[in-house]
Amino acid sequence: MGEPEPSEEDVMKVLIATDCHLGYAERDAVRGNDSFVTFEEILSTANTENVDIILLGGDLFHDNKPSRKTLHTCMQLLRKYCMGDKPVNIEFLSDQSENFKYNSFPFVNYEDPNLNISTPVFSIHGNHDDPAGQGNLCSLDLLSVSGLINYFGKCTDLDNVKISPLLMQKGETKLALYGLGSIRDERLHRMFREGKVSMLRPREDSETWFNLFVVHQNRSRHGLTNYLPEQFLDDFLDLVIWGHEHECRIKPEWNGQQNFYVCQPGSSVATSLCPGEAVPKCIGMLNIYKKSFKLSKIPLQTVRQFYIEDIVLSETSLNPEDPDIAERVLEYCCERVENLIDKAVSDHTGNIQLQV
Amino acid sequence: MGEPEPSEEDVMKVLIATDCHLGYAERDAVRGNDSFVTFEEILSTANTENVDIILLGGDLFHDNKPSRKTLHTCMQLLRKYCMGDKPVNIEFLSDQSENFKYNSFPFVNYEDPNLNISTPVFSIHGNHDDPAGQGNLCSLDLLSVSGLINYFGKCTDLDNVKISPLLMQKGETKLALYGLGSIRDERLHRMFREGKVSMLRPREDSETWFNLFVVHQNRSRHGLTNYLPEQFLDDFLDLVIWGHEHECRIKPEWNGQQNFYVCQPGSSVATSLCPGEAVPKCIGMLNIYKKSFKLSKIPLQTVRQFYIEDIVLSETSLNPEDPDIAERVLEYCCERVENLIDKAVSDHTGNIQLQV
Repeated sequence: MGEPEPSEEDVMKVLIATDCHLGYAERDAVRGNDSFVTFEEILSTANTENVDIILLGGDLFHDNKPSRKTLHTCMQLLRKYCMGDKPVNIEFLSDQSENFKYNSFPFVNYEDPNLNISTPVFSIHGNHDDPAGQGNLCSLDLLSVSGLINYFGKCTDLDNVKISPLLMQKGETKLALYGLGSIRDERLHRMFREGKVSMLRPREDSETWFNLFVVHQNRSRHGLTNYLPEQFLDDFLDLVIWGHEHECRIKPEWNGQQNFYVCQPGSSVATSLCPGEAVPKCIGMLNIYKKSFKLSKIPLQTVRQFYIEDIVLSETSLNPEDPDIAERVLEYCCERVENLIDKAVSDHTGNIQLQV
Repeated sequence: MGEPEPSEEDVMKVLIATDCHLGYAERDAVRGNDSFVTFEEILSTANTENVDIILLGGDLFHDNKPSRKTLHTCMQLLRKYCMGDKPVNIEFLSDQSENFKYNSFPFVNYEDPNLNISTPVFSIHGNHDDPAGQGNLCSLDLLSVSGLINYFGKCTDLDNVKISPLLMQKGETKLALYGLGSIRDERLHRMFREGKVSMLRPREDSETWFNLFVVHQNRSRHGLTNYLPEQFLDDFLDLVIWGHEHECRIKPEWNGQQNFYVCQPGSSVATSLCPGEAVPKCIGMLNIYKKSFKLSKIPLQTVRQFYIEDIVLSETSLNPEDPDIAERVLEYCCERVENLIDKAVSDHTGNIQLQV
């Protein structure tokens, strides 16, 4: 726009990803490691891109009670990639005992003098890894209590939800990060309609904050009330990171009614055979400078890509009168599948291979 | 003995405990927190006694797959009590990549520059928390991968077990710490008989090391082969810490045949109603100086004490010819139980109360 590039010290670099579903298909002989390999790629990218923080949109785990192997691998990767001597340049301004009030150590991990954090991870929970059972804990609580991540957006009083933002500053940029972990869609829909959800705003210079909201709900309308309509959200927001939906629609979409952008990173592993999951998987590199942002997408290299094609037999040269038509159709379909496999091989030859 | 007291810089202070069985009866409305409360007492004692290391003899957890609540509480307590600025004065001399070869981060936690450990915990696994499932992991692996404890004594090649000691030095005292996590008793018995278990000794000054072995097996003979006879163990050992047996026999017992002492700390929570569990629970304060040691017992204050009394009706004044004898016996028994409860109240009034 002709404006000078802001200095690096003023730009907050946030790596965004969601729905990593660690442990998905972990007993599958071929795909068993996929979720871990791609999570390692994400953390490794955070390091090479030298980001300030990693922001996850829920469903870090596939199962509410992940296997010991899954939990172990996750902890191993977080300790390997997110601890170290790189200084964290984010100043934390809000009341941490409020932001992390459900955590045993209610402060951000990189301010714990006993931990040497290089890249703080912030995460809300999704519907797969939501709190349950004794103590209303979830897997993210285990990562939080051991100091490996910063878990926020937990909400226990569903009669009166007040979302206090995490306030962070880097140079001239001030980020107000709002988060709300997954709540049953119908319930949240009703709570919004009844005015029971409110977002608190910083009193000082409230217009100067970049307001980012991360949420994990149905985005598309499956019925009257089992989704979260974008127009329910406050219009002071600048950007909404939408978790839960697996299709990668990472390019921010403008909502002209609410005057904010919505970015849907999509899952980093395909968990169902559908067109949405066949879209190439990406994570986002979000650069925030004061009230503006740039989001570039980083295609993931390790994802086992799904390919989907429609076959319309009437558009082929196959003759339905042919006495051997069944065999011809089979041959035709096999050929198309072989072509897709060739395409997959050619698309992915030379891609990085990570081994967890 | 008339000898001058060794200087504090030369004495290694080791707090020993075993069979904490975290999560035992966790759903019991009354006793649910017992295992956690006493574990907190143990860690808190380690702090006030300013020990160099904590040594655990297995069965830290009651269940092979502890509940999320149990794992969470354990991690919370370890982070709270074992991290901090107190310097660790133990120099590690052996090859850590060998000592911790089954760990993702094969080195002692207090040498990780990203963790600020004040009191290193060393633990083997017991039969309750032994490795299983995908990756042959156990709960201690989760504590180890997150940097909270040092898990050792894992053994996967059961055809040829070579136990390499952890070699540690403090001033003039050199400790060779051998550990072997729980193995099925019959199997270990056979392995010993077939000469498949060997303990490696440091080549240099092998006579100057204090040789401590921590093991988690049946000590009492339940049958021909389902226990570990003390005479199977090498006689170069100075002291054996025996886990698994819940009765507190913490005062070291001399084995004149093998020329070593055996110390059986016993569990820190009673998991069955039997006389062995009614013995007052203690942990040990082991002071090692060169080739000598002193072990003092520290009674645990928070344990819910069991009281057991035999009632021999023939030794009472009750008359078996009394037509209301059934009622009299009931009255008599009630009185005895009430007396025991009074004794319990009087024994424990004023004891510390910890709240996890």
